[in-house]
Amino acid sequence: MTTAFTSNCPIALNDYPKVLLAHGGGGRLATQLIERLFLQAFDNPLLAQRHDGALIDMNAQRLAFTTDSYVVHPLFFPGGDIGTLAINGTVNDLAMCGARPRYLSAGFIVEEGLPMETLWRVVRSMQQAATDAGVLVVTGDTKVVDKGKGDELFINTAGIGYIDYRFNLRPSEVRPGDAILLSGDVGRHGMAIMSVREGLQFESSIRSDCAPLADLVLSLLDEGIQVHCLRDLTRGGLASALNEIAQAGKIQIDIDETEVPVTEEVRGACEILGLDPLYVANEGRFVAFLAPPDLERALQLMHAHPLGRDAHAIGTVTNGSPGLVTLKSSIGARRILDLLSGEQLPRIC
Amino acid sequence: MTTAFTSNCPIALNDYPKVLLAHGGGGRLATQLIERLFLQAFDNPLLAQRHDGALIDMNAQRLAFTTDSYVVHPLFFPGGDIGTLAINGTVNDLAMCGARPRYLSAGFIVEEGLPMETLWRVVRSMQQAATDAGVLVVTGDTKVVDKGKGDELFINTAGIGYIDYRFNLRPSEVRPGDAILLSGDVGRHGMAIMSVREGLQFESSIRSDCAPLADLVLSLLDEGIQVHCLRDLTRGGLASALNEIAQAGKIQIDIDETEVPVTEEVRGACEILGLDPLYVANEGRFVAFLAPPDLERALQLMHAHPLGRDAHAIGTVTNGSPGLVTLKSSIGARRILDLLSGEQLPRIC
Repeated sequence: MTTAFTSNCPIALNDYPKVLLAHGGGGRLATQLIERLFLQAFDNPLLAQRHDGALIDMNAQRLAFTTDSYVVHPLFFPGGDIGTLAINGTVNDLAMCGARPRYLSAGFIVEEGLPMETLWRVVRSMQQAATDAGVLVVTGDTKVVDKGKGDELFINTAGIGYIDYRFNLRPSEVRPGDAILLSGDVGRHGMAIMSVREGLQFESSIRSDCAPLADLVLSLLDEGIQVHCLRDLTRGGLASALNEIAQAGKIQIDIDETEVPVTEEVRGACEILGLDPLYVANEGRFVAFLAPPDLERALQLMHAHPLGRDAHAIGTVTNGSPGLVTLKSSIGARRILDLLSGEQLPRIC
Repeated sequence: MTTAFTSNCPIALNDYPKVLLAHGGGGRLATQLIERLFLQAFDNPLLAQRHDGALIDMNAQRLAFTTDSYVVHPLFFPGGDIGTLAINGTVNDLAMCGARPRYLSAGFIVEEGLPMETLWRVVRSMQQAATDAGVLVVTGDTKVVDKGKGDELFINTAGIGYIDYRFNLRPSEVRPGDAILLSGDVGRHGMAIMSVREGLQFESSIRSDCAPLADLVLSLLDEGIQVHCLRDLTRGGLASALNEIAQAGKIQIDIDETEVPVTEEVRGACEILGLDPLYVANEGRFVAFLAPPDLERALQLMHAHPLGRDAHAIGTVTNGSPGLVTLKSSIGARRILDLLSGEQLPRIC
């Protein structure tokens, strides 16, 4: 795998095996990096304008605009790398707005000395992920910081999506009685990172769930499912997402733990590390709050999509205590599912 | 000044004098940082949606979209800081596309242990710069990396601007005979940074030229000046910008060094450090390539604007050797002004 990438790297690795400070400057080396590596990988007419920004002819009345920086450590993990994360994470934020993701920017902060081939592998992953998600990387920037002043590679992406729908997808639209759908099993991304970071060997390796969710989300919206709010389950996991919505929407959320899918591998790894899978980050999962009559049809649509096969109805919205999230455990007891104060797993995305 | 900011910092500095890893997590501390610091500073209806992205109702057919990461070291320098830079740099990239800057994203990568008050000072600078430039920060993200894995603070901004004009501002529109206008004196930003970094004491302190250029650019476009291409003079300075345009536009550029304004302070500091002011970064200067009949009127318009008072016609475009930039020095000799191979001043922006 490494060999295949190396042989394709369009920067002469004999001349430049590592990224130099000059690759982030305004000179020849920076131009070479942009032309041979980035422009070639993300080739499209908007990027090829090579302007200070991309010029976009709009065909929508309404946009979604979002940004995320990615500082995941390590850069590569089972099921993805910082590049797939940087594309899918921003694509998913747009999808959660009900937008059709279209254009991404990419800002690279590279630590001096990063192997050029590592940068190239990440760029290739981004290229593949962008193709899979149907988005174009249309503008970008590279900065190089001195060795010891960064950590290999940080990536920021910002994204623009078209909103074709007049839905107002937001916590304040959530209503008592709404059904809550979870798109699949939880905890895989965080545990995939932790397994590499801690050098844990599980019986079968845990792969990140990192995936672009826009297609699945739009399959619901296109069919007229009355979705009131969407939220992807990133940092802080399912528990944090539900708490945020309960607080912002001033509603109570009651969840049934037995309906939340967690694989045996993730459950076992969480037990070893003393973590609760409900708080572990995901990169390809979301919750949808929807009008109860649409629940069965929404489940059917999700089950028909590769990324929604494990979708479950996990609970309901009530008008009990605004901001409260409760969890009924497998033994039937109901407890409060609180927001964590600190950081369970730093640098997970 | 420091005291004034501290007394206003909406995070209790007794409880949280420094940024913790948890401030970048999915929990309570992260929520507090977002609510008390970022949402308060950048307060606007789009940001207040608190969605995964900002929802923007468009009233333009054409957009410019750009991004830049800012890794300047040190964070604070005479005439600005990383925050003013992060707003103005992206505003200026949009302006160079002929766009009216409107919406910005902000992604913060904070090193664990950064004084909370430093973050607050930077955010306040961004708030002021955004107000001055007439843009809204509508979406954002914060990541915290472990101590020793960053360098205090990196900021990425992406920007969206509306293009009201059907001008095609780009190097391929530049024509032999075009006049070249420089908006003011060069080299101040780079030398302001270097003076702090190297601890140099000059007779009078050199202040960065960091400023938002959109208003000045639009004053030309609004008056119908036939501008063919614009370029701001950031990393690599005037010399690099001219080389890029000569290459992309396949034209020759001839510059008269005596027409390029450089202050005595900048010239002196450059001599001490062995630098050429033509290669030193600026953050509030640009070159405009325009149809010769519009030159005088363009100069008048620029001289009437506070940021264009020192504007000069510095040279012309010829159809000599495509990609070549020549400089006539004060003693009358003409030499080639080349693209630097490496990085003259790392981490200048």
